[in-house]
Amino acid sequence: MNSIKLESMLKQFFNEDIGDGDLSSEYLFSPLDQGSFSFYAKQDGIFCGAEIIERGFRLLDSTLKITLDKQDGDFVKAGESLDVIEGSLQKLLTGERVILNLIQRMSAIATAAHEAVMLTAGTKAKICDTRKTIPGLRMLDKYAVRTGGAFNHRSGLYDCIMLKDNHIAFAGSITKAVETARKKIGHTTKIEVEIETQAQLQEAIAAGVDIIMFDNRTPEEIKSWLKQVPGHIATEASGGITLKNLRAYAESGIQWISLGALTHSVQAFDISALVQPKGVISHVNC
Amino acid sequence: MNSIKLESMLKQFFNEDIGDGDLSSEYLFSPLDQGSFSFYAKQDGIFCGAEIIERGFRLLDSTLKITLDKQDGDFVKAGESLDVIEGSLQKLLTGERVILNLIQRMSAIATAAHEAVMLTAGTKAKICDTRKTIPGLRMLDKYAVRTGGAFNHRSGLYDCIMLKDNHIAFAGSITKAVETARKKIGHTTKIEVEIETQAQLQEAIAAGVDIIMFDNRTPEEIKSWLKQVPGHIATEASGGITLKNLRAYAESGIQWISLGALTHSVQAFDISALVQPKGVISHVNC
Amino acid sequence: MNSIKLESMLKQFFNEDIGDGDLSSEYLFSPLDQGSFSFYAKQDGIFCGAEIIERGFRLLDSTLKITLDKQDGDFVKAGESLDVIEGSLQKLLTGERVILNLIQRMSAIATAAHEAVMLTAGTKAKICDTRKTIPGLRMLDKYAVRTGGAFNHRSGLYDCIMLKDNHIAFAGSITKAVETARKKIGHTTKIEVEIETQAQLQEAIAAGVDIIMFDNRTPEEIKSWLKQVPGHIATEASGGITLKNLRAYAESGIQWISLGALTHSVQAFDISALVQPKGVISHVNC
Amino acid sequence: MNSIKLESMLKQFFNEDIGDGDLSSEYLFSPLDQGSFSFYAKQDGIFCGAEIIERGFRLLDSTLKITLDKQDGDFVKAGESLDVIEGSLQKLLTGERVILNLIQRMSAIATAAHEAVMLTAGTKAKICDTRKTIPGLRMLDKYAVRTGGAFNHRSGLYDCIMLKDNHIAFAGSITKAVETARKKIGHTTKIEVEIETQAQLQEAIAAGVDIIMFDNRTPEEIKSWLKQVPGHIATEASGGITLKNLRAYAESGIQWISLGALTHSVQAFDISALVQPKGVISHVNC
Amino acid sequence: MNSIKLESMLKQFFNEDIGDGDLSSEYLFSPLDQGSFSFYAKQDGIFCGAEIIERGFRLLDSTLKITLDKQDGDFVKAGESLDVIEGSLQKLLTGERVILNLIQRMSAIATAAHEAVMLTAGTKAKICDTRKTIPGLRMLDKYAVRTGGAFNHRSGLYDCIMLKDNHIAFAGSITKAVETARKKIGHTTKIEVEIETQAQLQEAIAAGVDIIMFDNRTPEEIKSWLKQVPGHIATEASGGITLKNLRAYAESGIQWISLGALTHSVQAFDISALVQPKGVISHVNC
Amino acid sequence: MNSIKLESMLKQFFNEDIGDGDLSSEYLFSPLDQGSFSFYAKQDGIFCGAEIIERGFRLLDSTLKITLDKQDGDFVKAGESLDVIEGSLQKLLTGERVILNLIQRMSAIATAAHEAVMLTAGTKAKICDTRKTIPGLRMLDKYAVRTGGAFNHRSGLYDCIMLKDNHIAFAGSITKAVETARKKIGHTTKIEVEIETQAQLQEAIAAGVDIIMFDNRTPEEIKSWLKQVPGHIATEASGGITLKNLRAYAESGIQWISLGALTHSVQAFDISALVQPKGVISHVNC
Repeated sequence: MNSIKLESMLKQFFNEDIGDGDLSSEYLFSPLDQGSFSFYAKQDGIFCGAEIIERGFRLLDSTLKITLDKQDGDFVKAGESLDVIEGSLQKLLTGERVILNLIQRMSAIATAAHEAVMLTAGTKAKICDTRKTIPGLRMLDKYAVRTGGAFNHRSGLYDCIMLKDNHIAFAGSITKAVETARKKIGHTTKIEVEIETQAQLQEAIAAGVDIIMFDNRTPEEIKSWLKQVPGHIATEASGGITLKNLRAYAESGIQWISLGALTHSVQAFDISALVQPKGVISHVNC
Repeated sequence: MNSIKLESMLKQFFNEDIGDGDLSSEYLFSPLDQGSFSFYAKQDGIFCGAEIIERGFRLLDSTLKITLDKQDGDFVKAGESLDVIEGSLQKLLTGERVILNLIQRMSAIATAAHEAVMLTAGTKAKICDTRKTIPGLRMLDKYAVRTGGAFNHRSGLYDCIMLKDNHIAFAGSITKAVETARKKIGHTTKIEVEIETQAQLQEAIAAGVDIIMFDNRTPEEIKSWLKQVPGHIATEASGGITLKNLRAYAESGIQWISLGALTHSVQAFDISALVQPKGVISHVNC
Repeated sequence: MNSIKLESMLKQFFNEDIGDGDLSSEYLFSPLDQGSFSFYAKQDGIFCGAEIIERGFRLLDSTLKITLDKQDGDFVKAGESLDVIEGSLQKLLTGERVILNLIQRMSAIATAAHEAVMLTAGTKAKICDTRKTIPGLRMLDKYAVRTGGAFNHRSGLYDCIMLKDNHIAFAGSITKAVETARKKIGHTTKIEVEIETQAQLQEAIAAGVDIIMFDNRTPEEIKSWLKQVPGHIATEASGGITLKNLRAYAESGIQWISLGALTHSVQAFDISALVQPKGVISHVNC
Repeated sequence: MNSIKLESMLKQFFNEDIGDGDLSSEYLFSPLDQGSFSFYAKQDGIFCGAEIIERGFRLLDSTLKITLDKQDGDFVKAGESLDVIEGSLQKLLTGERVILNLIQRMSAIATAAHEAVMLTAGTKAKICDTRKTIPGLRMLDKYAVRTGGAFNHRSGLYDCIMLKDNHIAFAGSITKAVETARKKIGHTTKIEVEIETQAQLQEAIAAGVDIIMFDNRTPEEIKSWLKQVPGHIATEASGGITLKNLRAYAESGIQWISLGALTHSVQAFDISALVQPKGVISHVNC
Repeated sequence: MNSIKLESMLKQFFNEDIGDGDLSSEYLFSPLDQGSFSFYAKQDGIFCGAEIIERGFRLLDSTLKITLDKQDGDFVKAGESLDVIEGSLQKLLTGERVILNLIQRMSAIATAAHEAVMLTAGTKAKICDTRKTIPGLRMLDKYAVRTGGAFNHRSGLYDCIMLKDNHIAFAGSITKAVETARKKIGHTTKIEVEIETQAQLQEAIAAGVDIIMFDNRTPEEIKSWLKQVPGHIATEASGGITLKNLRAYAESGIQWISLGALTHSVQAFDISALVQPKGVISHVNC
Repeated sequence: MNSIKLESMLKQFFNEDIGDGDLSSEYLFSPLDQGSFSFYAKQDGIFCGAEIIERGFRLLDSTLKITLDKQDGDFVKAGESLDVIEGSLQKLLTGERVILNLIQRMSAIATAAHEAVMLTAGTKAKICDTRKTIPGLRMLDKYAVRTGGAFNHRSGLYDCIMLKDNHIAFAGSITKAVETARKKIGHTTKIEVEIETQAQLQEAIAAGVDIIMFDNRTPEEIKSWLKQVPGHIATEASGGITLKNLRAYAESGIQWISLGALTHSVQAFDISALVQPKGVISHVNC
């Protein structure tokens, strides 16, 4: 992750929530009041967000003492403590919700990615994400996917050519589209193409693409068609793939499976905050 | 919504996805190539995001012709068209994913809010949101909640005093916390307090708070305790409320029910884009 | 105050004044030249701006040693020192004017607010501000009002419904306006309405507003009309109120008096800077 | 003025006031409701802020029809209309206060500048401003000073060398300070020096400065000392000058008089907004 | 190019030059004074910057009439006109230098890129750029390279793995570095590795990299070593390549040649502005 | 330099290069891996960029230990070390290119400025820059010019009136242009005028300008015409001046010579980075 960019994102997020001030904690407490604070998991899964906690709270108060009990990628069990933060009570209370909103999302993504990876164990299929991320959070969403053991597809429109059905329809054919793109791209950029039929598959192979994406095909179709694909072309399945049918896709022999649901349909990972009076600091295990 | 803020958010989101350029559409097509484009629903629900579509595509190309088939709050059926956009093919393809990511989330929130509202029909309970929104998207998340017929809780830390368990613990008691806050706030700001016991309820009433939130109480507890609350104090239930037990809470006599899941655990509403060659423009009904 | 927002405001203000460099101090002195520096009051009043001094100078040079002689809200007498700052002479000279411009304004507002509060002593009237603040400075203007012992009215258009004559005229009536607004707002938002006649007053009470603002009414009118207002509705006087007639308004029985002049017509509080050669550091008492 | 910078300032100011939305006008009115709107003066003076009105309202709604009755620098009488704006009622109401806050300040500055200019009529003294402007508003404050017929002193620390008492004290002497600065500055930058004694005056003249500022000197001192200043050196009086003693300074023969009060102690110019229902549009003369 | 990003870059650049105002054109002319304006080439080469001219001047004044005589990639001869712009004289004069600074640089880069491409005619070598661009201008620098007929290497650190000598030294070996990276990257990202010896070349081939870069090798070495590289691995020469020895490298059989000098050592392309009084508008051919 | 502005520039530049992450160094190394790092010169010249190195790397990692071997303005010989930086290997590798791009440009400008200054030794001519800087880098470009011993012309359109041929043509004459400008500018702003003929020279002198710029005149013309210029008017030569004919211009008696090529046509100064494994830290002298 780019920590300079992360810091400006965190500032934006805090400003969104704090506005001109946190009425509750500023009106109730003095900046000198001390306390300590733990986040702890209320479900099992993969933790993600250590740098969010550290940089986030430090932005609010650089003197806070932050101890992390878990690192990104660690498996956590319900009841386990993620961290202990000590210092200005006012700042602890002010920062809680924004940090929680982020790490609950990131841990949920990491956990979902990990679950998908587990479901494909023993096959050669690798799980990856899509561009179906929350606008403004792509860096964090994609980091969480990696934390869960999966991989990143392209970052945006700028780092890979992706020829979808619409591109192909307007360009006339896969052949023409690839030829046109190939004249302009440098050697560090790959070309991926979506195919839906065997004829398109043959055309894509002949056109010399780098990656072929089987769009909304059944595991059986994929298994059968893969035989035609030369070894130097990467293969990807996408469309209509859920945790239920994921294993069947993984066993088709496909190399990559992209899952939009990893980021577009996330159930917040359950984490709670426990503020403790000064003197009773402990790494919670509820 | 603040349209000046919306425009700067959309610019940020496009920059995130486009970076220094959309390799695929820029390398394949000329800025003069024309096409048309429809978003259409692939599930039933409440549409939300009309201004996102209009301002978003206009930012990319102010000459695009945009016709909306649905307005915010309209019920859409699977297969129905949401809009038709005509103009530069390059810009249509570039803008598609960011706009989709936003309106899929907003329509999902509106649909969930609507569903919750429907479940409480005939009771006096109103549904509202929380601060458990996606960082950077609060304005849109809360707009979508309203579009679905529900209401907004406070916008952030800055527009309502909210005394939670942690505030109360450190302040010493509800009485002290309310007294302290009351000395500092003006007459346009309300004080809400979380209570978990009948003793706290009595204390909150005596302290003269504006809103009492029953935190993680059963519908039965709420029903019983509500009798003690004077009419000028608003009442809210929160914590552990899902679509399954929502009706029971609504029938307890509570006035407000806040649901974090409306915004923190959203399944993207299913919407697809259909690009059409120039000349075949039609308002899709698949 | 939101310190993250404050820091970005201070950066903006320094950039406005410094541009690409402070020609005078950069061309005359080396970054290693040391000095010390005091702000001292040249009039009596309430000091406001401690965090401006600390964060402002630290942004220019994190190694400056800053000692505050006064805290926000302290009464200062002409000739008293506000602080001593030691370190890089270059940075002291560069930062002086921007910091002065801010703390002179904030101390002036705090002093004016305090004066208004004193004038209402013994009555139940509380003083509050308006949205007539300097664009870009609202957070600081409103903080200074609180520092002077007065209160904040709403922060902006986003945190309270305020139905003015124009809203009412277009909506048709107070009754209709309140009904329409009530259908959309959540339970954390209040509705305030401006009234100018007894008929409007009755309508507002019947409509169930939270706050009634007596717009440009005499103290006598207010005193007489207040008898009709039920205890749970807050009352506010506004329009044409100056320090001269403030006491009369305060004695009318009104609860809140809002004064635009606290922020829209401020005479800078007189503060000077005294730079001292290294070795002669002292907390000035001129 | 730099209109690109102005536009980004206006966006910032609107965002400060509107936040995530104008609850009152958005909840009461539809975007299609039409109305018209006039600002009119409630006191006599010099109007300043035409571009604020035009660009400001256009940012909120580019379809508003804006007719200006006065241009910057025009003399307005109490009761005269400044403009008529027609279009979306919602946007008119949303934009009113921010625009008023700006043009009330700018017209106040222009009026004060004009008053000072009038008081010096017949002398060769010209009035100018200082860096005692509101942080964030310098471009507008200085524009208003010019609109009132006065002149701008330097814009910031970056466009003129200004050797104040503190600079001189640390540099050792005026002679050394000027020599040091002269070695580094280009030919487009002037050097101004503050003097308080005749000895300093002689030293400044000998050092070859471009501008000599008589700091806190009486009109008599200035008149007497000016005889020693060669014609190619500009002269300025500053410190302790008010509208009461301004004429005496102007008659001393000084060329420039700088007045911090033009910008640091501004009484808002009295302007009101009158919203009219559609069909009753008129250029108000109350 | 991303036009949303371009617009914010242009605003930043204008603000840098204009500050609070263009003293010369604002003080001399009224906003209503009209004129026309041509840029014309004073040397032969490839023009680049059409969108800069159009968007740049439109940002200053959306009513300017802009006619382009040349498009990006066109060959221009000394004396030929690039455009005619008609409208507010004030805005023409204000915008001239910033636009010139940009299009002189971009045309210089395009011309240099074109020259390099011409020098390699008939070989299979393609020219590409590096990350040695001017900070803040990468999007424009790389666009100009494409305009001249050359290609883009990676955009930044984020879109291609590049294992340089330092990476390899610390990782231990090419083999280890590639293995480590391969475990983490998705299928859309390539791995390029720098090699300096035949042993490294063999190691890189065995490690399965996508691109091999011959760092500071002679054309002879490259020609000889290339025979060992399988067809599916791209090859690139870099380091110490100038226009003088470029042909020799191109004839070595290498596929890609990257030239830092295209962007890090640019001689501004000679373009002048000719402002004409209203009525004498003509497409200049000097 | 304004260090607050510098820091935000550096953040922008790092974000441009790093995007969402440095794939190579993040995927290969742990944040805990340590290393050390030297920049060393590969040519002779004037070093410029110490603050870039210090603030730049500190932004990436505030714990890096940075030792500078050279200060701005120091003469460096090929092979000499500029600095040693120790700490996180990951951050060293991430920051290298952006910092190099900046200090190579700044050192090149300083070296060119120094060369020009040397060529005019013994004359009274001083070298200065122009507004032909890279958009976004003006503060750094002009700082580098000063570091090389030359001077800055105006910073932008905002700090000096500059009447060029186009201004004069539209204003009608030099006399009218100067009169118009003089009515509006304050005493801290100078007026410079371009002249091309003796008649214009006489007109400019009579109009009382502060600086006369001889535009595209030969050294002989300048020498001859200078006799007519009174001592209090500064003189500048510009247009068509290169290192080859610079001496002739300097000997003409002109006071200032402005050179666009110092900034618009810069050949990057040759600097390389040498990363060393932990334990082998040394100040390189290659």
